[in-house]
Amino acid sequence: MTDYRRLRVALLGAGAVGSQVAGLLLEHSAELADRAGAELELAGIAVRDIDAPRDVDLPRELFTTDPEPLIVGSDIVIELMGGIEPARSLILHAINSGADVVTANKALLATHGPEIFEAAEQVGASVYYEAAAAGAIPIIRPLRDSLAGDRVRRIMGIVNGTTNYILDRMDAEGAEFDDVLAQAQQLGYAEADPTADIEGYDAAQKAAILASLAFHTAVPLDAVHREGIVGIDKAMMDAARNAGYVIKLLAVCERMSVDSETSPTGDAISVRVYPALVPRAHPLASVHGANNAVFVQAEAAGDLMFYGAGAGGIQTASAVLGDVVSAARRHIAGGVGVGESTRANLPVLPIAEVCTRYQITLEVDDLPGVLATVAGILSDGRVSIATVEQNILSGGEAAEAGQESGVARLVIGTHTARERDLSETVARLAESGVVERVVSVLRVEGN
Amino acid sequence: MTDYRRLRVALLGAGAVGSQVAGLLLEHSAELADRAGAELELAGIAVRDIDAPRDVDLPRELFTTDPEPLIVGSDIVIELMGGIEPARSLILHAINSGADVVTANKALLATHGPEIFEAAEQVGASVYYEAAAAGAIPIIRPLRDSLAGDRVRRIMGIVNGTTNYILDRMDAEGAEFDDVLAQAQQLGYAEADPTADIEGYDAAQKAAILASLAFHTAVPLDAVHREGIVGIDKAMMDAARNAGYVIKLLAVCERMSVDSETSPTGDAISVRVYPALVPRAHPLASVHGANNAVFVQAEAAGDLMFYGAGAGGIQTASAVLGDVVSAARRHIAGGVGVGESTRANLPVLPIAEVCTRYQITLEVDDLPGVLATVAGILSDGRVSIATVEQNILSGGEAAEAGQESGVARLVIGTHTARERDLSETVARLAESGVVERVVSVLRVEGN
Repeated sequence: MTDYRRLRVALLGAGAVGSQVAGLLLEHSAELADRAGAELELAGIAVRDIDAPRDVDLPRELFTTDPEPLIVGSDIVIELMGGIEPARSLILHAINSGADVVTANKALLATHGPEIFEAAEQVGASVYYEAAAAGAIPIIRPLRDSLAGDRVRRIMGIVNGTTNYILDRMDAEGAEFDDVLAQAQQLGYAEADPTADIEGYDAAQKAAILASLAFHTAVPLDAVHREGIVGIDKAMMDAARNAGYVIKLLAVCERMSVDSETSPTGDAISVRVYPALVPRAHPLASVHGANNAVFVQAEAAGDLMFYGAGAGGIQTASAVLGDVVSAARRHIAGGVGVGESTRANLPVLPIAEVCTRYQITLEVDDLPGVLATVAGILSDGRVSIATVEQNILSGGEAAEAGQESGVARLVIGTHTARERDLSETVARLAESGVVERVVSVLRVEGN
Repeated sequence: MTDYRRLRVALLGAGAVGSQVAGLLLEHSAELADRAGAELELAGIAVRDIDAPRDVDLPRELFTTDPEPLIVGSDIVIELMGGIEPARSLILHAINSGADVVTANKALLATHGPEIFEAAEQVGASVYYEAAAAGAIPIIRPLRDSLAGDRVRRIMGIVNGTTNYILDRMDAEGAEFDDVLAQAQQLGYAEADPTADIEGYDAAQKAAILASLAFHTAVPLDAVHREGIVGIDKAMMDAARNAGYVIKLLAVCERMSVDSETSPTGDAISVRVYPALVPRAHPLASVHGANNAVFVQAEAAGDLMFYGAGAGGIQTASAVLGDVVSAARRHIAGGVGVGESTRANLPVLPIAEVCTRYQITLEVDDLPGVLATVAGILSDGRVSIATVEQNILSGGEAAEAGQESGVARLVIGTHTARERDLSETVARLAESGVVERVVSVLRVEGN
């Protein structure tokens, strides 16, 4: 074996990902040394509870409950504890002790990213976080390096496995949300408290990270518009399928042209997470189960897609170890890494200013003149109609919908409209007297 | 504008890709400077013919027919001439003059890669070649950096846009090869001399590059088994479709376990290009038109796919510029780049030793005992049958196949078999007296 320089690696956290990282570091040490050009010595693993059950059998003497002494003197610190504190303080401590940091902590980066990146820049340290953006899918290096000579226009990501699993099963089986969620919890695809996933918090954190990177702009988490999938029901899935769409929870990061008052460069961005109708022929529509995918549209490169496992201990561990090897190579090679750049600092537009296409489904009185009234309200609201489909509900369907017969269903596809105009118009439709019920309003993304 | 250090960039070649690279370097110079941390000064463009028509309008004073003086004193040399010479000599000259090199020259890297990488290592220069592997799709950095802590088991790539376009149209329209090829030539998807694409030479070069990178092994081009798509006809496409497959030209790079005589580590690799049956549900089956995709199976990360445009001047220019920015960052940051590694140096197995599943289609005499004879020959040849489907050809079909009636068609799906056994067995079937014709033998990849 080649005689390599030895680098001291500290691991903070040994949950589903951390225990796999530790296992791979020990098991593949010779191969990793060849790749990194340095021996990666796992100096210790800081945990809260040494006796907690773990997925991987690890030498007991590596464990400690005291992270601070472990960090001091380490070359690389891997933070996989999750949560804001003490992760934030320990990462800052590691940076200021001269270590490079590898983390998968999306919640922390989405809220305290700028603080951490600035601390690293001050001392010339690097922070690696491939696993924080889309699990095992390599997306950070493509965005930061491969597309460094291009301009990203738009990212559409399926970045949460739990919600994609739920929506995919609802689509494939015609099942109801609650039933699929309960099964997903039994199978371990969803947590006992699924809020972070189904309400879109997890996806919003990843959207903030992706948008920061793609647009060289600090994107605070509260600038990300967020809607979850709790309101999506079987009827909406069925209607989407019949119309040639599938409903996916998307993280959309978009560069837009605006007037020079809004942005001196004429460019602004929007970052948003919501369930949207995606055409069946779009590559994102074929992302099944708990898989993730990030679809990138760049000015020169055109359409790119990155697909893979979005979660899972061993899969995420792969992304973490890739970062560890990169950090080790940088230690050996010298020089400074590519820092985070917020040099563009584009304004992040509120959702009200975003323009997309919509599909509006209404139950209306089946009377002459109703369509004309509806069309008039849309037109007054600057919402242009692309397609209209009208179905008279059968007696049974009407009863199921809790309506007397004499009710028709209108499905309206719009041209691109501004969110503000659209929501004001839908409110006016609801109060118009001819609309019995606004069944759904969904955005259409992906063509 | 920040006051950046200036880096001198020389461009060799101004064809479809080169002219776009020059255009983007000039047009986006301020943005590129911010990203690279250095001003990228396009010092000149060396071409054979200054007056040749180009896709992009470029200042005439940048052009020269003398590359050598342009190279001397350059920090980054971009080689987009294609071909072996003078590209090889000029790249070596650039390396020895202290420049980093960016190239999209897959033919050169697949044949003279080791020589070039060694020359670069000697002087501490870096060679970047993202555009040589799969056009605009970022695949080099994911393989080299993101998966550096993982172990790649298998790559299946659709890495040639022309053949994917032809096969996709044959599949979608039930058209014949010659007709689609002629149309592809008219539309500019295929060259006037399509040999490099349809005979698989282009895909084989890319397969050699991908396998070298994934397996840390020097893969000479003549170790790549290569079959093109010229033999694929409408009948084969139709039969594939009916059986739930699509035929794709795949570049397969695979790590295999072998005995310790073949390889001291017990690992070997196989690199091969051939048309194969891919199940419709596989992500590669959804890659349409001239698009490319690289499907990677890694031990920890699981299945990953990278999708995008495989060719095109502006798309490929994006990958080239990403490399230029990386090279510039390295110049500014100092340190040495990640060199090419052939430390694993696994043996490359000949195609005879490769194991895959097969689909064998035979026309046989419709007589009692024929199936038993065929099954016996397969069993004697160590080819295990997974599925058999027998159809009596109608009179019309028999006539179309040039057979008298009384002929049946046998479609045999095998379990995994060794190529050597399979080809010997097929030869024995052909001579058995009961087989009228071996219609096709296709490999099955992707599950």
